[in-house]
Amino acid sequence: MPPVRALTFDIFGTVVDWYGSIVAEVARIGLPVDGGEFALAWRAGYQPAMQEVRSGALPWTNIDGLHRRILDRLLTARGITLSESAATDLNLVWHRLTPWPDSVAGLTRLKSRYTTTTLSNGNLSLLVAMAKHAALPWDAVLSAELFGHYKPDPEVYLGAARLLDLPPQQLMMVAAHPSDLRAAAACGLRTAYIPRPLERGPGGAMEAWAEGEFDCVARGVDDLAAQLGC
Amino acid sequence: MPPVRALTFDIFGTVVDWYGSIVAEVARIGLPVDGGEFALAWRAGYQPAMQEVRSGALPWTNIDGLHRRILDRLLTARGITLSESAATDLNLVWHRLTPWPDSVAGLTRLKSRYTTTTLSNGNLSLLVAMAKHAALPWDAVLSAELFGHYKPDPEVYLGAARLLDLPPQQLMMVAAHPSDLRAAAACGLRTAYIPRPLERGPGGAMEAWAEGEFDCVARGVDDLAAQLGC
Repeated sequence: MPPVRALTFDIFGTVVDWYGSIVAEVARIGLPVDGGEFALAWRAGYQPAMQEVRSGALPWTNIDGLHRRILDRLLTARGITLSESAATDLNLVWHRLTPWPDSVAGLTRLKSRYTTTTLSNGNLSLLVAMAKHAALPWDAVLSAELFGHYKPDPEVYLGAARLLDLPPQQLMMVAAHPSDLRAAAACGLRTAYIPRPLERGPGGAMEAWAEGEFDCVARGVDDLAAQLGC
Repeated sequence: MPPVRALTFDIFGTVVDWYGSIVAEVARIGLPVDGGEFALAWRAGYQPAMQEVRSGALPWTNIDGLHRRILDRLLTARGITLSESAATDLNLVWHRLTPWPDSVAGLTRLKSRYTTTTLSNGNLSLLVAMAKHAALPWDAVLSAELFGHYKPDPEVYLGAARLLDLPPQQLMMVAAHPSDLRAAAACGLRTAYIPRPLERGPGGAMEAWAEGEFDCVARGVDDLAAQLGC
């Protein structure tokens, strides 16, 4: 196998803690909801919304736009009215998510030897704002938006390989989600799984996976760096 | 006018010194040519090659590909034969260009207050390699390649505004080339001109421009940072 040259990272749940960040934001602004339930409901709208785009029912809409559609429905269903500026600001919590404690240190180590990029369904402006907020030291910010397709569509993984000018075998997809990694592997990418048992809060559900299914399994980004010799 | 939020940088000649870097590379590998003349000839092939793409005479070809076509012609015209690996490596000198002395310090200062990105005709993989080589601290790497158009086509400037989710008026194009800045201004971007009198070597030609034509004129990236309050 040719050596891995670039690591492409899933973001939501893999590098940053959306659940904990949204729970904290909801508490900060005093939204009258259960923070954990609200975070899970917001995130639960995400796959169906992308499927609406994928099916053509909705024209291309970026994640900021999809997050806002879901948020408006959640607020309406709970009888909550926010001003436009408050709703806009709440929607931008996805730009301000907090990294897992191992993320920045691990990325900094990996960057010394590998090209490190995002490969997220988040829109480019969201990923750039998040990187500035959280000091994530990417070499490049790649987004599904660049390809007009959402993961797990193959266009995203193959598009990243094309832009990085590497065969898929020299990319390693890093994610907390086995489904993302399986789609990447089907395109020829190598895979690193970082289980994040707290992604959906204490006791939250995780996707099933099998021992030996991925090229690496790491406890965090720092552990991945250690396994890859950085 | 709304405040500028993002600075988009031209690269070749504006942030890095292609002329000096190619002269040094030609000397290092002992290519039997006049380094300055060779650098200018290589660069001179660049606009016509992009025009071949723009006209449809050539299908989309990235800058690595265009640089290689030009290089092969230059070597043939001079009766020089290189091995494939030597030609490949020489072509990659464009990934290893040296920044002007003010670039890294200035970008680091600007990044504290603005989103800073490339907006170059160079392909994404070239720009990523250059950033790693030269420690250029971009928030995002944007390339003409993402839009399937080369500057000065408006799709590039407007595509950057779309990806950064900002109106063109909140972007400032930074370049050593008045023609690039005029095309950006025609799309609504603001403009910062950094004259680089040594871009084409000592005594080399520069494009004409008029006092008052651009929003800023700076002596270097560090001076631009000072003018923008960073």
